[in-house]
Amino acid sequence: MLIVGERLNSTARSVAAAIAARDLAFMQQAAQAQVAAGAGYLDLNAAAGMAREPEDLVWLVEVVQDCVQVPLCIDSPNPAALAAGLAACRQPAMVNSTTAEPERAAVVIPLAARHGARLVALTMDDAGMPTTAQGRLQIAQRLVALAGEAGIQPEHLYIDPLVRPVGAEADQGQAFLEGIGAIREALPRVHLICGLSNVSYGLPGRKLLNRTFLAMAMARGLDAAIVDPLDGQLMATVYAAAALLGQDEFCLQYLGAHRAGRLETA
Amino acid sequence: MLIVGERLNSTARSVAAAIAARDLAFMQQAAQAQVAAGAGYLDLNAAAGMAREPEDLVWLVEVVQDCVQVPLCIDSPNPAALAAGLAACRQPAMVNSTTAEPERAAVVIPLAARHGARLVALTMDDAGMPTTAQGRLQIAQRLVALAGEAGIQPEHLYIDPLVRPVGAEADQGQAFLEGIGAIREALPRVHLICGLSNVSYGLPGRKLLNRTFLAMAMARGLDAAIVDPLDGQLMATVYAAAALLGQDEFCLQYLGAHRAGRLETA
Repeated sequence: MLIVGERLNSTARSVAAAIAARDLAFMQQAAQAQVAAGAGYLDLNAAAGMAREPEDLVWLVEVVQDCVQVPLCIDSPNPAALAAGLAACRQPAMVNSTTAEPERAAVVIPLAARHGARLVALTMDDAGMPTTAQGRLQIAQRLVALAGEAGIQPEHLYIDPLVRPVGAEADQGQAFLEGIGAIREALPRVHLICGLSNVSYGLPGRKLLNRTFLAMAMARGLDAAIVDPLDGQLMATVYAAAALLGQDEFCLQYLGAHRAGRLETA
Repeated sequence: MLIVGERLNSTARSVAAAIAARDLAFMQQAAQAQVAAGAGYLDLNAAAGMAREPEDLVWLVEVVQDCVQVPLCIDSPNPAALAAGLAACRQPAMVNSTTAEPERAAVVIPLAARHGARLVALTMDDAGMPTTAQGRLQIAQRLVALAGEAGIQPEHLYIDPLVRPVGAEADQGQAFLEGIGAIREALPRVHLICGLSNVSYGLPGRKLLNRTFLAMAMARGLDAAIVDPLDGQLMATVYAAAALLGQDEFCLQYLGAHRAGRLETA
């Protein structure tokens, strides 16, 4: 299970302020803590800086690379910022994200290909976000085809079937999980990734809902998630689910987390 | 999601002692607490009494019926005890359990049919417990056929595909989950039930593993479990999973549990 650490995102006000202030210590602490907690990639987003975004993002890439070894996930709605961020990366990165919207795909997919980057690809297109498993699968197939034309192998693609809030539409948890299952079966080479917080939007006990949903999605084939690795109970769920699914040989990671006191079970 | 409360089982020494002492207050407290926590059936097992078992079980059935309204799950390896317990039930019960072993099935299935009881049916036969999803499905199909011949509808059958410890065989969590999925697809009318504690045998953090596995099994189609409803974090996982799977209209049960302070999320 690949954990992409989500904490260095400028939609959080404290992160936006720390970027604006060029607060090195803040960034290094957040980066190192996420890696220590099990993040395999770190997502970096500086989009709150608006016109300053490309320059903010390059600074962020530089300071994070100076203190941790894990690869980065360059996160922006702005292709110019993505290009600047990717150019600053010292090792192959991940791009967050493209969709199947022709305008966005035409820019972001070649950019990721040029940099040998992995690519998060959301199952949405000009018609919006599908609500069915089949709708998600169809867009995923189109994304694999578009990426393939640009020379990106399915193994470098992280399909995100887009979680929708179950508080608003009760069937959307099940539709997402069936989408995961359908994509895993039809496209066995791609990775499957998601964020979690949308699923619990508007409900109490959001962390409980999010980590429970993560376990269920892993049971259907999810193999990556963009989450907060400092959420101890969420990470305990990840270790437990990986052990239960036979993805953790001899349960060594689970047992190691237990011995290190990192399994928050209470 | 049907919760069968497992606390009144004489394999627990305190329960065996309370049965032997005819401790009414102990039984009533355990029964009422489980129902208050969400149990829809109560499992009753007096097998530790050996030769006294039928008489112990009848006493247990009587005292529990005197204090709660939920139906009972009569749990014994001994057909004579099952028959005595069922005869004492004032409403249709559940029988725990038959297997596909010809000797056991020939006695327990007709007994359940005679009492109009629901029936827990374990996927094992004279060759033992299967280790594959297909092996589990094949025995489940045989159990449905055997029950059908005795007049038990699939809707009254609770198939238990038998969890095996992942600490000993790393692939058995996945094989169980695939078994659940295969049975749910091939036999959509049956219920799917399981106990959980075997899955975590020999590992630390067993409650974390058990509740994580329960969420994953619910995502594949499990709709009943024999568990301890007084495990607050387990029940929180059940409420969360049901809401996420669209099995809890308008999330009313989830929200009710939250308002009642019964969602242990911390």
